[in-house]
Amino acid sequence: MVNIAVLGYGTVGSGVVEVIQTNQEIVNKRAGDEVNIKYVLDLREFEGDPIQKILVHDYNVILNDEDVKVVVEVMGGVEPAHTFVKQALEAGKSVCTSNKEMVAKHGAELIQIAKDNNVNFLYEASVGGGIPIIRPLTSSLTCDDITEVSGILNGTTNYILTKMRDQGAAFEDVLKEAQEMGYAERNPEADVEGYDACRKIAILTSLVCGQQVDYEDVHTEGITKITQQDFEYAKALKGSIKLLGTYQRIEDKVYVMVAPFVVSEKHPLYHVNDVFNAVFVHGNMLDDAMFYGRGAGKLPTASAVVSDIVDEVKHMGRNIMQIWEPGKLELGNFDDWKHKFLVRIQSEDIDDVNMDDVKNAFGDVLYVKAPGIANETAFVTAPMAEGAFKEAIQNFEGVISTVRVGF
Amino acid sequence: MVNIAVLGYGTVGSGVVEVIQTNQEIVNKRAGDEVNIKYVLDLREFEGDPIQKILVHDYNVILNDEDVKVVVEVMGGVEPAHTFVKQALEAGKSVCTSNKEMVAKHGAELIQIAKDNNVNFLYEASVGGGIPIIRPLTSSLTCDDITEVSGILNGTTNYILTKMRDQGAAFEDVLKEAQEMGYAERNPEADVEGYDACRKIAILTSLVCGQQVDYEDVHTEGITKITQQDFEYAKALKGSIKLLGTYQRIEDKVYVMVAPFVVSEKHPLYHVNDVFNAVFVHGNMLDDAMFYGRGAGKLPTASAVVSDIVDEVKHMGRNIMQIWEPGKLELGNFDDWKHKFLVRIQSEDIDDVNMDDVKNAFGDVLYVKAPGIANETAFVTAPMAEGAFKEAIQNFEGVISTVRVGF
Repeated sequence: MVNIAVLGYGTVGSGVVEVIQTNQEIVNKRAGDEVNIKYVLDLREFEGDPIQKILVHDYNVILNDEDVKVVVEVMGGVEPAHTFVKQALEAGKSVCTSNKEMVAKHGAELIQIAKDNNVNFLYEASVGGGIPIIRPLTSSLTCDDITEVSGILNGTTNYILTKMRDQGAAFEDVLKEAQEMGYAERNPEADVEGYDACRKIAILTSLVCGQQVDYEDVHTEGITKITQQDFEYAKALKGSIKLLGTYQRIEDKVYVMVAPFVVSEKHPLYHVNDVFNAVFVHGNMLDDAMFYGRGAGKLPTASAVVSDIVDEVKHMGRNIMQIWEPGKLELGNFDDWKHKFLVRIQSEDIDDVNMDDVKNAFGDVLYVKAPGIANETAFVTAPMAEGAFKEAIQNFEGVISTVRVGF
Repeated sequence: MVNIAVLGYGTVGSGVVEVIQTNQEIVNKRAGDEVNIKYVLDLREFEGDPIQKILVHDYNVILNDEDVKVVVEVMGGVEPAHTFVKQALEAGKSVCTSNKEMVAKHGAELIQIAKDNNVNFLYEASVGGGIPIIRPLTSSLTCDDITEVSGILNGTTNYILTKMRDQGAAFEDVLKEAQEMGYAERNPEADVEGYDACRKIAILTSLVCGQQVDYEDVHTEGITKITQQDFEYAKALKGSIKLLGTYQRIEDKVYVMVAPFVVSEKHPLYHVNDVFNAVFVHGNMLDDAMFYGRGAGKLPTASAVVSDIVDEVKHMGRNIMQIWEPGKLELGNFDDWKHKFLVRIQSEDIDDVNMDDVKNAFGDVLYVKAPGIANETAFVTAPMAEGAFKEAIQNFEGVISTVRVGF
């Protein structure tokens, strides 16, 4: 029997308990041992819930119990989670977590401490919820030079963007609906400003490159400025707008960003709708691959956490190799990264547009028409460096909006 | 340094050599050791190819060389591959393979022999080419009760069906084109009759259920009878036709089959086109997930093989747990499995159809119209047991074709 402790009895924590209880036989068989939840840590009381019997309020009870071999951190937030995890690893306990903030910030350090103590630190649920993506990256795609990882990494924003497209609704209205349905937080900033996706693409890039990518260094734009008109142009371009976290290596420079992109209907990410997430990967041998599933939700996320518990029980006393060094990875200069841009400018008619001015500012562009939109003209630029584009836009009069056209 | 030997210098074998040579640094880093190809076994000579220097014609050279720790079987066919693999495992060498026939037939036995000898037998490339699917099933989705696995498991047939839909072309014409482009074999039977997909779904089902599924027991239908008219009706139903291998567990009975299905545009498998493959998985905690990528081709397949080599080097002297017992899994009675069917019957006009006869034979049906098709009537049945449907069809006059409507 292997005893585990669950830190935090919130959505994911109660999900972990439910997954283990519902599928106890499968879990034990796959782990090769009986998995027993000895403690649940939470500051609250849960009167009437059978969990009360194993509830503790003091982390030291868990830390000092040598029988606890696996600690499951599903509290969220950087502290005290980070301190608890560090202490557990140093005490010779394996840890798994769904905490993307802590993993993005301290992943390299915690992997090293786990290695030094011959235990494991796993975090499958920190990116893509139930989708197996961390383990495939570290254990399956091990002979490929991975030059791109692009993902729909946030279910809330994908739900909002899907509804905006399908219903022609405005951002604020769909956000409100999403909040009512429980798909968006009352304070939606972390989702709609791209901060959540930013931490996730930082984790994926760190793993693929084997070195720490600080999420503070990742250029991040949200979806709050996207309008129905932008979607009309995306449709005219046979695409849709998706919030992507994307890592690309171009001529040995690593670029990472989070931003809305016009994604073509020919790209597999185009078809990932509603709250679903997906991670697209390109390797020099593998070519294209994609991993699709539920990026959030109590049970899918808990399923990923419990798969880590199973792996840690299977690997008792043996560290699973992971390459994520603490040395900070130097990113390429964001201003040099080239993209195509959809640009909308004010104009009563396309004849009012001075095409020479457009050409001088943006090079050879492709004009796009969208049905039912008046008093503006839109075009897609050739690939332009981010810095040069930003400058061109600042000096150009009457720009309504811009969206990258990328996939 | 870990020495390996590659059995067979055909498409996949030369791909394995190319992947290791191109990405040698990545492979060594991820394996934690230098991976060195000591021998390539092939009956042929390759004058002028640098491989000639390490080419051997006698398998015993490899078998008796204690320095060879990993044997890579990419010859194909059941024999002599099976004998070679068995001998290698018994000699304490790990083996990886892309050979779906051998894995489907002897997987359980070889996994047991590997376990007995404390080495590994891995076969990621045997299903889904470059797509990581075997390792996710055995190492990631370990706490879920997986009640469905449905896959587009054959690139040739998916290419043919995609072209038939997009170009309105006939099966024979697209097959000929696919043969000219090298996407289909000169003898296309294994692909178009579903035999290839059958072996793959048998492997996936064995893995998910943990017990041997004999591919001879899997009901298998190919795509040779699918016509442009069938596609018109699929379109009218807002779907397309895909050849699927599918495992489902319904009320504790396991059902497996390979057949063309009308797949709805709402299902993620609908968007998997051309030579791409994908495996859709449903778990009771995970909900829906899908793994997408290149199901064939020299380098994607070789990438999966080399990921197994890396895993085996990482696990020298330690058997990776796999649950696939030799005891044969009892399948549910195919005749009891319920599906909806698209049925096309001869009739000058829908008024000629005796709807009472239809109702008596097929229950409450949904009539479907497809533009430009005359002299026939089509409908979709309610879910009917396979046996009852077969009998109804045999007793009904003027049936043109039937296709299951399933996803």
